[in-house]
Formats: sequence, C-alpha cells, structure tokens
Amino acid sequence: MRGFYIGRFQPYHNGHHHMVEEIAGEVDELVLGIGSAGDSHTMRNPFTAGERIMMVSKSVDEFDLRTYPVPIEDLERNSVWVSHVQSMSPKFDVAYSNNPLVVQLFREADVEVRSSPMFRREVLEGTELRDRMVQGDDWENLVPDAVVEVIDEVDGIERIRRVADTDANGDDSADPE
Amino acid sequence: MRGFYIGRFQPYHNGHHHMVEEIAGEVDELVLGIGSAGDSHTMRNPFTAGERIMMVSKSVDEFDLRTYPVPIEDLERNSVWVSHVQSMSPKFDVAYSNNPLVVQLFREADVEVRSSPMFRREVLEGTELRDRMVQGDDWENLVPDAVVEVIDEVDGIERIRRVADTDANGDDSADPE
Amino acid sequence: MRGFYIGRFQPYHNGHHHMVEEIAGEVDELVLGIGSAGDSHTMRNPFTAGERIMMVSKSVDEFDLRTYPVPIEDLERNSVWVSHVQSMSPKFDVAYSNNPLVVQLFREADVEVRSSPMFRREVLEGTELRDRMVQGDDWENLVPDAVVEVIDEVDGIERIRRVADTDANGDDSADPE
Amino acid sequence: MRGFYIGRFQPYHNGHHHMVEEIAGEVDELVLGIGSAGDSHTMRNPFTAGERIMMVSKSVDEFDLRTYPVPIEDLERNSVWVSHVQSMSPKFDVAYSNNPLVVQLFREADVEVRSSPMFRREVLEGTELRDRMVQGDDWENLVPDAVVEVIDEVDGIERIRRVADTDANGDDSADPE
Amino acid sequence: MRGFYIGRFQPYHNGHHHMVEEIAGEVDELVLGIGSAGDSHTMRNPFTAGERIMMVSKSVDEFDLRTYPVPIEDLERNSVWVSHVQSMSPKFDVAYSNNPLVVQLFREADVEVRSSPMFRREVLEGTELRDRMVQGDDWENLVPDAVVEVIDEVDGIERIRRVADTDANGDDSADPE
Amino acid sequence: MRGFYIGRFQPYHNGHHHMVEEIAGEVDELVLGIGSAGDSHTMRNPFTAGERIMMVSKSVDEFDLRTYPVPIEDLERNSVWVSHVQSMSPKFDVAYSNNPLVVQLFREADVEVRSSPMFRREVLEGTELRDRMVQGDDWENLVPDAVVEVIDEVDGIERIRRVADTDANGDDSADPE
Repeated sequence: MRGFYIGRFQPYHNGHHHMVEEIAGEVDELVLGIGSAGDSHTMRNPFTAGERIMMVSKSVDEFDLRTYPVPIEDLERNSVWVSHVQSMSPKFDVAYSNNPLVVQLFREADVEVRSSPMFRREVLEGTELRDRMVQGDDWENLVPDAVVEVIDEVDGIERIRRVADTDANGDDSADPE
Repeated sequence: MRGFYIGRFQPYHNGHHHMVEEIAGEVDELVLGIGSAGDSHTMRNPFTAGERIMMVSKSVDEFDLRTYPVPIEDLERNSVWVSHVQSMSPKFDVAYSNNPLVVQLFREADVEVRSSPMFRREVLEGTELRDRMVQGDDWENLVPDAVVEVIDEVDGIERIRRVADTDANGDDSADPE
Repeated sequence: MRGFYIGRFQPYHNGHHHMVEEIAGEVDELVLGIGSAGDSHTMRNPFTAGERIMMVSKSVDEFDLRTYPVPIEDLERNSVWVSHVQSMSPKFDVAYSNNPLVVQLFREADVEVRSSPMFRREVLEGTELRDRMVQGDDWENLVPDAVVEVIDEVDGIERIRRVADTDANGDDSADPE
Repeated sequence: MRGFYIGRFQPYHNGHHHMVEEIAGEVDELVLGIGSAGDSHTMRNPFTAGERIMMVSKSVDEFDLRTYPVPIEDLERNSVWVSHVQSMSPKFDVAYSNNPLVVQLFREADVEVRSSPMFRREVLEGTELRDRMVQGDDWENLVPDAVVEVIDEVDGIERIRRVADTDANGDDSADPE
Repeated sequence: MRGFYIGRFQPYHNGHHHMVEEIAGEVDELVLGIGSAGDSHTMRNPFTAGERIMMVSKSVDEFDLRTYPVPIEDLERNSVWVSHVQSMSPKFDVAYSNNPLVVQLFREADVEVRSSPMFRREVLEGTELRDRMVQGDDWENLVPDAVVEVIDEVDGIERIRRVADTDANGDDSADPE
Repeated sequence: MRGFYIGRFQPYHNGHHHMVEEIAGEVDELVLGIGSAGDSHTMRNPFTAGERIMMVSKSVDEFDLRTYPVPIEDLERNSVWVSHVQSMSPKFDVAYSNNPLVVQLFREADVEVRSSPMFRREVLEGTELRDRMVQGDDWENLVPDAVVEVIDEVDGIERIRRVADTDANGDDSADPE
C-alpha cells in the first residue's frame, strides 16, 4: 500500500510533519510530491526543489516508513495534472489532500483521495512561518531540526528577506521596471 | 463571407447566443473561437475545451449558418496572437469583438473588426452565471437547453463548487501549500 | 455512441475518407482530431490547422454523421497525451487508430481502441501525395473534391514546393544558417 | 570593463537615461538588457521589444559609450535566470540593479552587483509616465526626444489607451469572456 | 561530501549499478539525476520517471550510501542546464559523467567533474538491453532484481514492443499520419 | 530604409560579411537577426547568443551603416514566425534571405523579400568552418578578425571539439544514457 501526499513545503514544517506521521499509520510507503518544483526565490516560494528535497528527506528519517520525495514541476493545465503527477511518481494507491481542486481532479480520474481537516493547518502555518522569517520572529520551533539546518546552510533567511522586499513592490520575478 | 467570433464560453450562454444570431445576419459561415482552450477546473474557467465544443455545437444547430467551433490555446504573446488565431482557424473576412485589446491587435494586423455595445452583456453574464451555479441560484434559464445537458452530463455544478472553494483560498491551480 | 479518430490530415485524402465512411457505420457521432495542429509550412506538415479543418469539414458533409473536427496541438509528453486529447475533445466512447503507440497509450488509460489494417493505407498515401504535389504529378484524384478547392485557395502547391526545397537542405524551420 | 543594466524600458525615460549616464563613467561598454521582451500591448508593457530597441539605441547615441541593447525573454524560473541572461548577453563584469531579487540572484551566482538609491526613480516614473499617456497629460518632457519619435511612429498613445481600457476590465490578454 | 550522477536509466542496469558502487567509495551521499524525466513510451525512453525512481531506489538499497533519486525534466537550453540541475538537486560537490557535453557544461560553470572510461559501458548496454527486450532475448540478468520486478509490474515488455513498432515507422510521438 | 537579414552566425564569417557589405549599398540601417538564439554548446550551434552579438557587432563596425544585432529565440511555429520576428526587431522595410521557407513565410505575410544566389555561400561555409575548427585545420582566414578574438576569449575551439565528440554519439543535449 503506497500513498501520495503533495505540498509545496516552503518550508517543510511541523504541520506537514504531523500529517506524514498520521499517514504513516495507514500506508507502507509514501511518495512526497514537492509541488511547484521550478519556483524559488519568491516570498511564496523561497526555496529550490533541491533544498526542499533535503528538508523532507532528513526530516522523515525518524519515521518507520519508506518515502520517495519527488519534485513535481507545474504544468498549468489542470486537465492533465493527474497524468503528469502519475508519470513523475512511483505508482500510488491513495492520495492525501485537503485542497478541493486536487480532490476534484483525482476523483474525476478515479483515484482514491482521503481528506482531513487537519490538512488546513499546513496552509496557515506556511504563510505564518515565512512572515516570521522576514520579521525576525521565532520560527525555528515550528519546523523539524533538519529544516533549520538546511535553511542555515543556504543562508535562507537573508534570501527570503530580500525577495520579500521585491514582492512588496508587487513583483516576484527578476524583471525590474 | 466568413466571420470570426471569439469567447471563452465558460459556459456558452444566452448573451453569446444572441450575438451569434445577430452575426448570422451578416455572414455565410462563422468560426467560433473557444479561447483559453487549455484552461479548465477553475472558478473562471470551469469547463474543458471539449465540453465547450459540445455546448456551442449543439446550441448553434438552430441557426441556418455553417459554424466551425475551434479551440484556441493561449500563447501569452500578444504580438503573435493574431497569427496564432489565423493559423488555427479557417480563413475569415471579419472579426467580431468588443474587447479593446483584441480590436487593437486585429487593427494593427489590418483585419476588419466589428464591435457592438451588445457584446458587453456576455462579460457580465459569464461571471454572474458562474456565481449562481456556486450559490445554488437559478442559472438554467440563462443558457440554451443544450448547455444544461452538457453541464449535467459532466457533473459540472459539483465541479464548479469545489473549485470555487479552492479559489476562495487564493489559488487556482492544483498545487496546495 | 461517439468515436474518436486522429490523424495529421496533411492533407485529408481518400484513405482517410474511406476510414471515416467505415467508422460511420459503427458510431453516431465522430470526433476528428487534427494532430500536430501547430505545425505547418514543412514538407511533412504543409497545411495549417485552420486549412485542415476546412478540408475535413467540407469533405465529411456527404456522410450522414455528426462530426467534430478538433485541432490538437502537440504536447510532447506521451504520458499525458490521453488526458490532453480528452480535455480538447467532446467525450468519446471508442478511439480508432492503428498506430501502436496510440493504441498502447489508450489501453493504459482504459480507453477502448479499435484497429484495422486498412488504417495503414493512409500513412503510405500521405507521403506519396505530398511527393506528387512537389513533382507535379497527378494528385487531385487521390483526395475529395473539397480538398482540391482548399489547396487551390491557399496556393498550397506553391507552398509545398518551396518548403520541399528547404527540407532538401535538411532544415524544416524558418531558421537559416 | 563591461557593465550590464536591465530594465523593461516601457518606455525608456529620463530616469533610465540618467542612470546610463552615471554608469558610463564607470565602464567602457554597457549591455542594456530589455526585460520581458516577449510582452507587449498591455498597460504595463505597451511596447514590443523591437520598439524598445529603437528607443534605447537612438537615445544612448549621445553618450560616448559602446552599448549593446539586448532583448531578454522571460523564463519564469528564478533559479536559472542568471544563466539565461549570461547566455543572451555579451560577457559582463558588473551588473547594475536596485531590484532586491536581481541583486540576490546575481550574488548567489557570484556576479558583482552595484546598487544605488537613484534606481528607484525609474520605477515610479514608468508607472507615472504610462498613466499620463492614457490620461492625455504631458509626458513628452519625461523622455529623450528619440523616444517621442518612436512612440509617434507606432501610434503608441492610441495603443496604450486601448489596452488600458482592457486592463480596467481586469484582463491583459487578447482573450475576451 | 555529496556526488551527482546523471543518467536516463532506461532502464537502470548493471552498468549503472557498478558505477554507483564505484562512486560509493568516494562520497558520503549521492544524488541520482533521472534525466529526460518527462519522456516515456518511446523505444529510447520506454519508462516514466516514476517507474525509474522505483528501479533506482530499490536497487541501491544494498549499498551503504544515502541516495536521492531526482527526476530532471529536459529544458533544451544547454546554456542554463547546469543551473537547472543545481536547482532541482540537493547541493553537490562533484559531478560524475563521461558525456563530453556534460563535462564541458559543468567545467564552464566551475563544477568539479570526474570521468572514467567505465561510464561508456552504460551507453552500449542501454541500447542493447532495450533491443533484447523487443526481440525476446534474455535481458533479466543484465539488471538488478528490483528492476525486473518493476518492469513486470508495469507490463514493460509489452509496452516497449508496441512502441518499437511505432518507431520502426519513423515516429516516436502519439501523432499518426 | 531599413533592412532585415537573419542568420544563425555560428560563427559569423566572411560569407555573411560580404552579404552585409552588399546590403549596405541598398539600405540605411540593417537589423541582423541572430537566429536560434537559445541554442549553444552543440556542433551545429556552438556559440551563445551573447557571443554571437559580440562577433557581429565588432565585425560590422567597419561599414558605414547603422546596425541592430537582435537575438531571436526559436518558437517552432512557422505560422507565427513572421510576427515573432517583427515583434523582436526594429521595424524593417525589406527582408534579405535565400532560404525558401523564410521567403515563403515573408511573402504570405506581404513583406518584401530579396534573394541572391550569393546567400548560399554562407550555408556551405558555416558547416565547413565548424569542421575545420574540430579537425584543427585553418579557419581563422575565413572570418573577420573580431570573430577570431571572440572565439579565443571564450575558448571556443575547445568547446566545439568537446561537443563534436558528443554529437558523434548521436546526442546534442546534456542528457547522457
């Protein structure tokens, strides 16, 4: 029994971590889809896919569960999104998501989906976390230790502060006026 | 004499239908360009190109007019948009549009364009219609009967309600936090 | 009962036409997918999607069958090809193809496919036809009359001769040395 | 010593011009990257890359500096943006920018970047300038004379007014409801 | 010390496996880049990225080495290829390759590359292996056991035989004449 | 009177140079379109767009002619190629080309094109030149002096030899077996 759980993991935090723990009780193996893999260096998507693979891989080590972190680039075609995900991921039996669009797309493709109100936490925590990083508030206790190490290694706090500056001017690409 | 009339037709409704009736008096054949053909499963673009071809084809049957419904994928390059449309569509003599940008692009390419204030109705009705679908208000009497059938067949109301939920969270792609 | 039959139709010829006649005996409606819709002005793909829509639409008029000619742009991702086609096309119950890859992709997606050795004729005739156009040999009796008209209208013979020249130099894009 | 200075130049105005003058004192040659080269016919990006090349080339003639105006198409992948720019541009020793994201990307790639608060002027002036064009207020004295000529030649004021109309309806592509 | 080793792994075979064993002696962790991740269902690229992740992950279990299998989609822009790979992969100190272009690109980007004549074996064996699969010759003893299991599970032999048929007709996309 | 002359300029050589000299007698200004701008590091396209801008700019200095070297990325859609070129280039009155496809596309778009058998020389010399670079034969006397300098500066001979090696194995992307 293999599950599939997708997130942007910007960054991977305790909300995600608890979900993985939860799912670990239901499946033998878990694919962790790292969404918007091509995006980085924006306020909403500060970290590269490679950095997020590190965060996820090191963090889930503590669980007794075989995991496959897989970056998934955006296709911007909802109608082929399920096929895209299925081609990039090891075959899975059940998808975990609380995003209504993701749920709808998997259902139209006859893939079993499981939802839980708990998933919502991750959304709130992601935005909150990034704001704290920018403001200089405490964020380290909201993520697994491995994530703190990765962010330190890539000088992630300085990066997110700079790009936050750019976003404040209404821009999130490297293309100035 | 062949005309070209483009819309997203999300869904095809009475406003569009009256425009086609109007245009039918001026041309022998009409190309119906189905814009943003690659988009679907969002609040603004709930239906696939294939579903919209069905809506349009069945609805215009009642007119004495040869029609060609043609899906047009977005290119996101305004400067080549006219060439793109011309390559996908049977050759046409006049374009019908009230969108100022479309009018401008056709004029710069020396294509005749005809506008009418009546076109504006379609814009308002599209948004209104989709809101009614989400809210559970009456929408069936704002579209041709054939459109009701297509939407029923694909379980369109459930789909638009789900994706409306996602959009309310500021997202319109299948990529969760 | 709706069928789906895909080809490049460069141009639509008697081999295709006989297949459509055959299929007409098995289905109520038929989607005619016009493949590689974005390609044109090459030896292998001389005509635009719009020109091919005209060829197909006018030719199938003689059959007692509702048809939907639908241009399909290439995605160059075999793993999402079926989803792409399904989103662009009115819903279909059975696909007709003799291309082993197409058959394989539809089967993996649990779509019924019907093949027939007769399909092979179209392949041979397409290449043969275009060679005749270039060489100045007789080609008009290998296609429906409506196709002759479309090709005349767009000065198609001059076009294919020019691009044949370019291809002979090993190039099929508008990008010289 | 060769510098690199990127902007969208929609249009090229006195703010940009003063920056180039400033930079001219520090380098022997200057690459002028014309960003979002594929965008045009929107309120934010009214002019084509070709039109902007003309504006820039004619305006910088007065400086004693070899310049290379180079259109740069958007890639929408921040992580490869520096490589993309480097492949499109003659080799440069130092980049000039005040955009925090651009600064961050160049730094992560070990490219020297110089910033100056003066760069901010260009941002404000770009938006202000386009608003004046739409409103019919005086704009000609905010740009070099060569820019006035280019905009006149392409009927730029009429174009920006039309597309402003479209944008007011929340749309910036040639794809109507 | 982290290494990076890229291949298409179509399929992952004993040649690759010996290389990984070799590299395991030089690094602490190894990223396994799965190239042309978007390609599948062709003679040259029969398996999806997800299937190849499975092959690689299960096979390298036997080594005492932390590995990260990472699908890398093609960008078709050699000049940004290194940046693309670096953004998708956990940070690495040394790249392993015998492909002269890959070596050249990494060197121009100041990344250390190590080559070995032994790498060539993988090239020959990949083509040979796929031919054997098509011909019905013995191939199972040229790959790790885990790879046999994955290929059986996805009915890989039937798939490659079908697509080989298509390729024999000079085509490798799902787009028939 | 402004002309447009497109080439890949891989590299810019005496054949191109004589053509520019010829054209200089007919126009006041000349746009030099640098085709396949995104390609580099292959046997057929060894140099980046930026490197080719340098070659062209420095070489044409000797002529009394205002020139605009403009990189043009491939779109791979022949039907929109003319619009693409027109949006990237300063407005031009006449195009110079001997490529039959380019001639055909400009004619269908009602752009004046001038051809000359002399253009063919450039094709032959491009391939010949690159072969000489690889083989170690004399090539310096076939190109303007400025081109020798640029190629030396970027270590171009080593690069083309390495990628020639890769091409000999039937590959021209950074994606090994």
